[in-house]
Formats: sequence, structure tokens, C-alpha cells
Amino acid sequence: MKMDILIENARIITGFAGAMYAGRGFIGITGDEITYVGETAPEKTEVRKRIDAGRMIAMPGLMNAHTHSPMVLMRNYAADRTLDDWLYKSIIPIENKLTREHIRNGSMLAIAEMIKSGTTAFLDMYFDVDCTAEAALEAGIRANVSLGLLTSHNMNNGLEDAKAFCRKFYSRYHGAGNGLLRTSLEVHSVYLYNEGTLRDSAEFAAETGMTVNIHLHETKSEVERAYGEYGMSPIGICRETGLLDGPVAAAHTVWLTDQDMDIIKEKKVVPVHNPSSNMYLASGFAPVPEMLAKGIRVALGTDGAASNNDLDMFGEMHIAGLIHKGRTLDPTAVSAENVIEMACANGAQAMGFGASGTIRTGNKADIILVDADGLHNVPMLNPVNAMVYSTSGADVDTVIINGRTVMENRRLMTMDEEKIRYNLKKSASELFNI
Amino acid sequence: MKMDILIENARIITGFAGAMYAGRGFIGITGDEITYVGETAPEKTEVRKRIDAGRMIAMPGLMNAHTHSPMVLMRNYAADRTLDDWLYKSIIPIENKLTREHIRNGSMLAIAEMIKSGTTAFLDMYFDVDCTAEAALEAGIRANVSLGLLTSHNMNNGLEDAKAFCRKFYSRYHGAGNGLLRTSLEVHSVYLYNEGTLRDSAEFAAETGMTVNIHLHETKSEVERAYGEYGMSPIGICRETGLLDGPVAAAHTVWLTDQDMDIIKEKKVVPVHNPSSNMYLASGFAPVPEMLAKGIRVALGTDGAASNNDLDMFGEMHIAGLIHKGRTLDPTAVSAENVIEMACANGAQAMGFGASGTIRTGNKADIILVDADGLHNVPMLNPVNAMVYSTSGADVDTVIINGRTVMENRRLMTMDEEKIRYNLKKSASELFNI
Repeated sequence: MKMDILIENARIITGFAGAMYAGRGFIGITGDEITYVGETAPEKTEVRKRIDAGRMIAMPGLMNAHTHSPMVLMRNYAADRTLDDWLYKSIIPIENKLTREHIRNGSMLAIAEMIKSGTTAFLDMYFDVDCTAEAALEAGIRANVSLGLLTSHNMNNGLEDAKAFCRKFYSRYHGAGNGLLRTSLEVHSVYLYNEGTLRDSAEFAAETGMTVNIHLHETKSEVERAYGEYGMSPIGICRETGLLDGPVAAAHTVWLTDQDMDIIKEKKVVPVHNPSSNMYLASGFAPVPEMLAKGIRVALGTDGAASNNDLDMFGEMHIAGLIHKGRTLDPTAVSAENVIEMACANGAQAMGFGASGTIRTGNKADIILVDADGLHNVPMLNPVNAMVYSTSGADVDTVIINGRTVMENRRLMTMDEEKIRYNLKKSASELFNI
Repeated sequence: MKMDILIENARIITGFAGAMYAGRGFIGITGDEITYVGETAPEKTEVRKRIDAGRMIAMPGLMNAHTHSPMVLMRNYAADRTLDDWLYKSIIPIENKLTREHIRNGSMLAIAEMIKSGTTAFLDMYFDVDCTAEAALEAGIRANVSLGLLTSHNMNNGLEDAKAFCRKFYSRYHGAGNGLLRTSLEVHSVYLYNEGTLRDSAEFAAETGMTVNIHLHETKSEVERAYGEYGMSPIGICRETGLLDGPVAAAHTVWLTDQDMDIIKEKKVVPVHNPSSNMYLASGFAPVPEMLAKGIRVALGTDGAASNNDLDMFGEMHIAGLIHKGRTLDPTAVSAENVIEMACANGAQAMGFGASGTIRTGNKADIILVDADGLHNVPMLNPVNAMVYSTSGADVDTVIINGRTVMENRRLMTMDEEKIRYNLKKSASELFNI
């Protein structure tokens, strides 16, 4: 047997509920695949590169299931505002100035930031998304990039033109980069769409087979407006218009009734929890323990950096592991193991990367090695708890995506960090006159 | 004029509400004091060491106003449990095995971890606290270490013996290390004390002038028990017994009525917010916005690592900046500026280090330099927001305490990190048979 990479003697977090921590062991990678997982070294194997991971924890790469990567351009710009105030008064005026170069520079920095904090895949929604897709291909990160009928004023020349524009994007990027990329259908939200465009989107999703990527039940006022307009909740009108008949990743899902959660469960929607953003914009706390109790698979995302204000999934895991205990006064509300499932396997599900998100033979080799020897992690009494409660993105040492090492010893291998930083600052100085 | 250190061209966060960010400037240090703060370089000055801080943010060192440093030994040991379950079933059985060597090794690692994440002072409560005081002196970190009449079974030989034991500790360490150390009176909690020992403690605090360091209103059941026993809330019985007549740092303060908050305000108690621990142990959310609205100065702490599970005050600031927006649905509930005041100036107030916590001429030189150029902080549109919402302890580059550089370029100058890690692991292996 031949292996390209053999990770030796790591503490292995598998990503599988009930068997989350596997103790110390070895992980072999051949091409883009995990070809060996075991407690002992594989026998009779020719190995191209060995990684001594004795002081590392190996775990599935983190899956950021909701973000808007170019929004790093507006990081920390507007604080202490509600969603509407933040979006319409601060963010959109800047967004109106964005060029394709800004989007490209923002995407590059966001991807570099995500890799440096252990994210190996992300689900993205923004404008000029081909810039983001190209940046992902260049970096070698897994990504699912969404484009919708209303994105970038695609509907200016009518529905058929918008569909053609989307189809062209999908055919170019869906499966590109040896399967690194997927595409999906953005349906921004019930409040920016109307019944007609929701139905058009549902039909288009069915026709193209795309996953629908939507903001859903983010704020109380969004829900109230939907009841006013449709006599039902946002997720109710989504079901009504057929939008939930294929795979759906629904970001936020904060304001849900029990009935709304039953729709999520029945239609196998994957809700994406964005706790930092929901607090930052005072949207509220998503009922994650309640969803988990119903057997719903909840994924995790950072949202865009402008409402977070970073893209560190370790920070997001930490927060997701804590806030529900505080809200429900139940310390078992969301366990560390739940959080890792959310950040890995359930994210993979949300994005349609089913062969990622867990460590087992036959899966794609999306693996991160996390330094377990930082003072803040000594002693390492419980690797699963440590990943959620005391680890930060800065502890990530090595990132492997699709079998390719994209970061080693915290050095990016596929991207020029200095150039990315320089370009981003240049774009920011244009946008903010600084 | 002569200066030992001149920090050049840093972005300066002052720590003062209303003038929190001062733009780029220069900070001069002579001996243990800040002797210059200005937009331009000081003229006619002989400088021993210049620090080019062009890519740094200079801010007051963080003040961890509630922790139990040796509890790093039990980091991530017990997760997903209530305070009672966690304390009595997991923590105390291990604590019963602790030796002075364990306490010393735990204190050393905790202090190293705190310095590495930008903390320059901490308020500590535990057993064998002279080990912690000695560790703080060795490291050169500012600390206020508490010892109480009931600590370490001091009362075994009666009240006078316990008082003598405490007095000896206070006289040895209060003001030691050129004012680096202070001591205070631990009164663990209303639930572990009774009316007699509360009164004894109040008298002893008045006699010695020590600040009282107490856990107060942490859980709902603590409050209910006090009503059952005393017919009043825990803070009510504290006032009744005279315990609030001098300076008091009160950790947690989660379950407070409006009347309880009025007592805090009236008696100038400094409540110490521990959001991670309060969520981790499912105690709840402290009413911080409500306290701020009353003009109460709230400080911030990590609590011990066993209920956090790290000692990173940047993580704590991040969480403190977010959760109250989520709970109140008001994005202005606790602002980034509020959080920095809590973590710096108000912490200094809680510990009795009034000349720390802000950057101005005449204050003690407790200053940290934070790398502002991490990808997760680019672009740096707002340093105050960035420190709260997108910075982690790993971004701290340089730490100066009392004019002495204790970390430079992330290298500890006064402590041997490898030895500390080795010793801590040795202690943990003894305690947990690993």
C-alpha cells in the first residue's frame, strides 16, 4: 500500500456521535482520500510524508455552513446595532461601492483567515460570487458558493436571463477542482423575495438539483412580516412554495415555534446556527437544544465577518457550547460532542459534502491538526471538551483539504499571506477613505 | 528626561469611557510608571529601549477580577454539569488530593497562561494561597490574593488562631514586590459560611482593612437557601452582618432583584461578571446591562479554568460583549467600550489597584501590545470593537507589568514555559492517574 501522508500518533476526534474520541492513532491519506485509520501504524506501507502528531489533536476540518466571505472588508465597522439598522444604514452604503476587485480581495482574505483557524469548507452567499469561487479554487479550500435569481440584479432582464446566468455559473463551478467546489441556489430571504420569486426559485432548484441557501427566521420582525403578508411563518411560505422539497440550508432559525421546527424536521432542512451574529445584531438565541431534542441536525456558521467579527469556527463552537446552557439553565442543553457534530458532520450535510466532516476510511481527507500543548490546553484531560471550551483558531497547526496540505506549522502553503493582507488593506482604504 | 521604555506609534486604547480610543501615539515608561502619553514623540528624552508598535494596539493590561488559578489542574475535566454536581462530585474529590506542589505548579501555569493572553493582574481565591502569592512574585504579575478565616480549615484551632494565620499572610504579602501584590479577605460564600462566621469576617475586614472577596448570588438555589435561612437575600445578609462596609469584590451576581442591585450600588460593591463560567455551570446570565444602567461599575473575570476552561480575558470580553445583546434583544445593551472598562479600569477597582487599568501619565505601567495585523483583524476599522469582537489572547505580543517586560514577541521573559508545562503535566498525572 502507498500513502501520501501518514499522521502518526495523534489524538483522534472522529466526528462521530457516541464514538467521538478514538484515543491515539494513525491516519493515512492517499490522494484526496483517507485510506487508513487505526490505533497502530499501518504495516507494509510506503509513505511519502510522515507527520509526527504526538502533541496534536487530529479532527475533521471545520465546516463553516453560513458566511458571506467578502464581508471581512467591513469587519468591526458597525457595532451595537440591530440587523435592520446595521444592514441598511452601515453595510449597504458600503456594499454599493464594492467592485469585483474588492470582492476578490475580500474572498481571498476570508479564505486565508478560515484556513488559519481550521475551516476546510464554507457555504457562501454574496455578490459576484464567481470571484469567491475562483479564490476558493486558487486556495484549495472546499466551498459551496450560492447564486440566486435575484443576486446581483440578475432579474434585470427577466427570469429566463437570470436562470441562464445562474446555469452558466453552476455548470462552470459545480464539481470544479476535483470536487472541491459545489454550487447552490441563493434565496436570500422571504423578506427580500416575494411569493412569485420564491416559486420561481423553488422550480429552478428542482430543475437544477441545487441546494437552497436561505436566511430564515432570523429576527422577530421577519416572522411578523411574513405572518402579515402570507398568514404564515417564513418557513411556512417556503414549504407552501415548494422551496423545501430539495436540500435546504437555512441560516439563523432563531424565532421558531414548535410547528416551525416540525417543518424543519419533516422536510430535512439543515438549520445553520450563527450564535455570534445573532447576539451581535440582537436577533436572539436560536432554540438549538429544542431542535436537537427533535433529532434535527443543526450545522454551525460564523455568518459574515461584519456581524461576528471574525471567521473563527473555534470561537463559534465555544459560544455555541455555552449560551444554551445559560439560556435554559440546563448544563446538558448542548454538549461538547453536539457542538463538534454541528461544526463538522452537520456542516458537511448542509453543504452537500457528505464525504467530509468525519474521519474514517473512504472519506475525503479534510483534516486539521490542532496543537494540544498550548498553556491554555494543559493538562489535556478531555480532547473533545478542549476543542470546544479552551481552544482557539490560533491553535490550528496543519490543515489538509482533499488530501492537500494547505497550511503547515501555521504557514499557508497555497496562498501568499502578505499579499492578501496588502490587497485587503488597499480595498478597505478605497471603501472607507482611510 | 529619561525613559526606560518608549512605545512608538501604537494605536492607543486608553481605558477611559468617552475617550476610549486616542489614535496613534507614544507611551513612555520610567521605572514602574507611565511618564508620557502623547501624539508625538517626547522631546529631549533619553530612551533605554524603543518598541516600534506601528502594527500594535497598546491598551491597559487586562484585570482578571475573579479566578482560582490552581484550578487549571482540572481544566476540561468535568463538562455539562450544574455547579453543585460539578463541585461536589467532580472537583472536590480531586481537590482533596491536592498538595502544595500541585498548587504551586497550577499557579505557575495559570499565571503564564494569563500573561500570554494579556492579563496583567488577577484576584485569586484558593487553598495554600502563599504558593500563589510566591508564584506571582516570581513571575512579576500583579495579583490580589485572598485568604479567609475558613480557608484551609484555618478555624480548626479557633477564631483567634485563624485570624493570626491570616494576619501573618497579609503582613508578608500585602504590598510585596514593589506593590505588585495585595491581599484580601476571602469569604467564600454565604452558603459555606454562617451568620457567626460572616460577622467574624466583617469585623476582621474592618480591623485589617482588607477588601472582601466573595461569591455572591451565583445560583438561584443559593438565593433561595439564604431566604430560607435568613429571610433575606445573600447580599442582604452580607449587608446585615457588616460585610459590605468596606471594599467588596462580589463574583457572579447572577440572580439579583432590583433591590439587590440597589444594595450593590449603595455599598459600592464591585460585582465581577463571569459569563463563561455562569453559562458552563448553567447558573444563568448576570443582569449586566441593568447594573450598568444604575451606574454600577462591573468588573470581569474568567473564574477558575475548571469552569471556563481557559483564562483568556479576550475570550471573556468577547462573550461579555455578545450575550447581553442576545438576552435583551438590545444591541446597545453592553457596548465594546463598556466591556473594555469592565476588563480594565473596573477590574483595577475590584482589586484595589487604582493606579492600573487605564493609560495615563502617573499610572502604573501595566500595558499590553496586541498585534493588530492578524488576518482576523484586517482591516482594522475600529480598534475598540476589534479588541472585543475579533481578537484572541494569542494576538498579545508584549506584556509590561509595573514597568517590567514580562513577555516580548510572545516569549515569556520571567518564566520558563517548558518547565511550567512539564511540572503541570506531572501534577495532573498524579491527580488523575494519567
